[in-house]
Amino acid sequence: MKDSAVLLIDCPDRKGLVARVSGLLFERGANILHADQHIDRGLGLFFMRVEFELDGFDLEGFRAAYAVLASELNMTWKLTSSARKPRVALFCSQYLHCMADLLHRWRTGELVCEIPLVISNHRDVANLAAFYNVPFEYVAVTTETRAAAEVRQLEMLERDKIELIILARYMQILSPGFVARFPAGIINVHHSFLPAFTGARPYHAAHARGVKLIGATSHYVTEVLDDGPIIEQDVARISHRDQVEDLVARGRDLERMVLSRAVRWHLDRRILCYGNKTVVFD
Amino acid sequence: MKDSAVLLIDCPDRKGLVARVSGLLFERGANILHADQHIDRGLGLFFMRVEFELDGFDLEGFRAAYAVLASELNMTWKLTSSARKPRVALFCSQYLHCMADLLHRWRTGELVCEIPLVISNHRDVANLAAFYNVPFEYVAVTTETRAAAEVRQLEMLERDKIELIILARYMQILSPGFVARFPAGIINVHHSFLPAFTGARPYHAAHARGVKLIGATSHYVTEVLDDGPIIEQDVARISHRDQVEDLVARGRDLERMVLSRAVRWHLDRRILCYGNKTVVFD
Amino acid sequence: MKDSAVLLIDCPDRKGLVARVSGLLFERGANILHADQHIDRGLGLFFMRVEFELDGFDLEGFRAAYAVLASELNMTWKLTSSARKPRVALFCSQYLHCMADLLHRWRTGELVCEIPLVISNHRDVANLAAFYNVPFEYVAVTTETRAAAEVRQLEMLERDKIELIILARYMQILSPGFVARFPAGIINVHHSFLPAFTGARPYHAAHARGVKLIGATSHYVTEVLDDGPIIEQDVARISHRDQVEDLVARGRDLERMVLSRAVRWHLDRRILCYGNKTVVFD
Amino acid sequence: MKDSAVLLIDCPDRKGLVARVSGLLFERGANILHADQHIDRGLGLFFMRVEFELDGFDLEGFRAAYAVLASELNMTWKLTSSARKPRVALFCSQYLHCMADLLHRWRTGELVCEIPLVISNHRDVANLAAFYNVPFEYVAVTTETRAAAEVRQLEMLERDKIELIILARYMQILSPGFVARFPAGIINVHHSFLPAFTGARPYHAAHARGVKLIGATSHYVTEVLDDGPIIEQDVARISHRDQVEDLVARGRDLERMVLSRAVRWHLDRRILCYGNKTVVFD
Repeated sequence: MKDSAVLLIDCPDRKGLVARVSGLLFERGANILHADQHIDRGLGLFFMRVEFELDGFDLEGFRAAYAVLASELNMTWKLTSSARKPRVALFCSQYLHCMADLLHRWRTGELVCEIPLVISNHRDVANLAAFYNVPFEYVAVTTETRAAAEVRQLEMLERDKIELIILARYMQILSPGFVARFPAGIINVHHSFLPAFTGARPYHAAHARGVKLIGATSHYVTEVLDDGPIIEQDVARISHRDQVEDLVARGRDLERMVLSRAVRWHLDRRILCYGNKTVVFD
Repeated sequence: MKDSAVLLIDCPDRKGLVARVSGLLFERGANILHADQHIDRGLGLFFMRVEFELDGFDLEGFRAAYAVLASELNMTWKLTSSARKPRVALFCSQYLHCMADLLHRWRTGELVCEIPLVISNHRDVANLAAFYNVPFEYVAVTTETRAAAEVRQLEMLERDKIELIILARYMQILSPGFVARFPAGIINVHHSFLPAFTGARPYHAAHARGVKLIGATSHYVTEVLDDGPIIEQDVARISHRDQVEDLVARGRDLERMVLSRAVRWHLDRRILCYGNKTVVFD
Repeated sequence: MKDSAVLLIDCPDRKGLVARVSGLLFERGANILHADQHIDRGLGLFFMRVEFELDGFDLEGFRAAYAVLASELNMTWKLTSSARKPRVALFCSQYLHCMADLLHRWRTGELVCEIPLVISNHRDVANLAAFYNVPFEYVAVTTETRAAAEVRQLEMLERDKIELIILARYMQILSPGFVARFPAGIINVHHSFLPAFTGARPYHAAHARGVKLIGATSHYVTEVLDDGPIIEQDVARISHRDQVEDLVARGRDLERMVLSRAVRWHLDRRILCYGNKTVVFD
Repeated sequence: MKDSAVLLIDCPDRKGLVARVSGLLFERGANILHADQHIDRGLGLFFMRVEFELDGFDLEGFRAAYAVLASELNMTWKLTSSARKPRVALFCSQYLHCMADLLHRWRTGELVCEIPLVISNHRDVANLAAFYNVPFEYVAVTTETRAAAEVRQLEMLERDKIELIILARYMQILSPGFVARFPAGIINVHHSFLPAFTGARPYHAAHARGVKLIGATSHYVTEVLDDGPIIEQDVARISHRDQVEDLVARGRDLERMVLSRAVRWHLDRRILCYGNKTVVFD
């Protein structure tokens, strides 16, 4: 894979946006690999993702020229090079299946990022982190010590210049103040098909209700529990034979899938948030 | 297909139930086509479905002998012959896709039943009913006339000896008194993945929440709206491109599928209700 | 829905294509509703679909201007207005589930086209065609009369100015000469997950092999049987309990789904063929 | 989980089989946890799986009594206790995603077995095996040395009393002689939806054919390549945007799923082979 750049744009819709953006890219000699647009006509919003080759391209020159255009057209935008890998921290508690899955995908090159930090309130993950050569920090959390624990976590995150936090079945609630530090920067996996079964013990609730499919949901974390913009969801069929423990076992596969897809799409800069929703460019 | 009988059993679990039931069937010379059991260990309940050939079998003799056994073992049971087709009424409002689908499946032999009655509060279905040679009754319903309308509907249902009512996108709420007349005898399709998005306009709610899958649910109707035992659910993937009208269009396919499966399973006597759940024997 | 136009482009890839096309649209005042591109880097090909509003837009003026650009850039292209509905003929044999499904979707506005012709080698479809007010022609076909039958069919197709033929479980093989008259203009549904189980009786073959999923495939017809560009595929889970007749029944739902999706995408001008594949813009 | 026993039966169909088997279990005081039957009417075969509690049950006494009944009824049967864990060997080559997945599921208790042996013709798996404390043996294989390599492998398998071999993306072909030593005892995962795309490089073949879904298949290995009884299959949707490397990446998830399910079902003794098919009791 050669290096490429991704330009993500979010602005009020108006005529000529594609022409202006693609015109400037053409003028600068960009070789476009992929371009996609989305228009929310109800809200009058325009979204665009363009990926182009960096080989022989003057990225910083383009950035300066683009800033002028973006300012004129009232655009929110982000221009990043694939050469710079995002710095990611993984949080987990006692269940390690998502953590093991993410680390394996990272090792095999499916997830392109740096992982300088794993944080857990359980020590069980230490061996796994060591196997993948990722630094592990143990931070105990109780209701009483949550505030102090978050201070420590934030110090670690700052120290390691973390840009994205992945809650890989991290069973502690983060405070609004913590969440506010990482807008669209914390990805969680919830073990139900949201908005059904928010909160604790969703597999028990699903079993009690007698649903015929169980689900899992990955989403950005906001101040309201289990309410942030949904990135990905998937479901699996169950039957009357399945007890709660069967739902838990099947759910593990769903959780791994929806969380790893969300992380990959975020790292590939395919996701734009607006309102309480996501655009996921394919 | 030769004629067959189905025995459905529901009783407290204890040792030897399969042996006793299969022993009596063997003694009477039954040729078992299919047998399935389910045990809910938490509740201590036993469920069984046995299907056997009727050719040369003394069904009424067996019924009498079985009644003795069932009484001894405290069983709730139902023994029916495939030769007797259940009598079904279809209810709909202005959306006809489920109605058209059910009538086509009935015509082609996929749904084995009598359909002596179609009721609607819209006249649009008249042609479709006529095409399939099914009697149609128009019963207007408003909030003020609901009680009187239900009286008329109940007269028609009684007149036609209806055993199963299918709400094929019937947009009126039935009173608790009406529902109580047909325990596990009214099947509805709700256009969401229950328990998410109960009530009116679920596709609008799904679009507003930004879910990545939409669903549909078929269930038995109980007094509580959208809360009865779930029979079948299915989902379809959507994206940020899909507007509410796209969800409605895709949802139609889901609604047809989950409703027609529920009706087929009910007619094949594959479903047992307990608590607020279903056992669906496959 | 306001009227819109769709421009489909297929050409050798080079820098600036998006800029040139979107620049011309902007210059002419087009309001773009949706734009999507695809680049096959292996083959060096560029594909684009742009949909824009027609209200107050000079379509013929744009067509003339675009022709100059397209000639310069060596583009294959097609510019159509949604106001002109494609003229479609439906072919079927004795199984009517796909035919009934397509006609219902057409009646409810899901498929936007004219249907001036239904052709079958069985008379069973006559009532259904009459119900939907679509002219029906009976054309008997045997191995000996195939050539003469095709002559009659072609006369009807020409008389009715048919642009798209849908084989809704039409069980006769079309001659290469017939097929050559409608390049990317005949859509078939095959009742297997191609390329598995080509040819006759695919459900029998699937049952014999013991697969755990059955499938259906919609594709453009080419000279080679079951080998044309695939438009859509879907599958359903089966088990050891399912006999061939169960596969047939479940397959009907798959066939309806994959065929109706293919027809809708074709009518929405979302499909481009190249090599033996399709690009399906979403 | 308390200990339980599983009885698997396979015999010519005749009346009274369920009654005889369940009668004997009742007589001996067995507490049945789950029972399921299947009858292949075309072939006149009967299949049954019964699981019952072992607590306070005389398993060996029952085994002796059952042997008499089984002989009379011409049954093939297998009676095993969950207390005895099957001994499993894992084979792999350079791709480790299935191996990592299986070992993680084993560690977390999802796969109940002993794994005394990992064999590979690549050294890459050594660290992973060490992390899970599983003995690893390196056995180089080339076309010339295949016979000698198999001799070494068979010695290891015998030494470690292996009952089940799992080919977790093992890219070498096993000789008919080797395969014959483990009837229904070698599980492979093939990276296509069999019978489509047998043999080498199925993702390349799928891409070339332009399919819209890719698949994976787990099956028992027989003498004929990719032709053994299918245990499980699953598919994932792809689009024209996906290149071969995207198919490979998505396929990894499918491979993990279908292989791990097959292994779990085998270890739970849910699978019976007959003809070239499987019955998988749920």
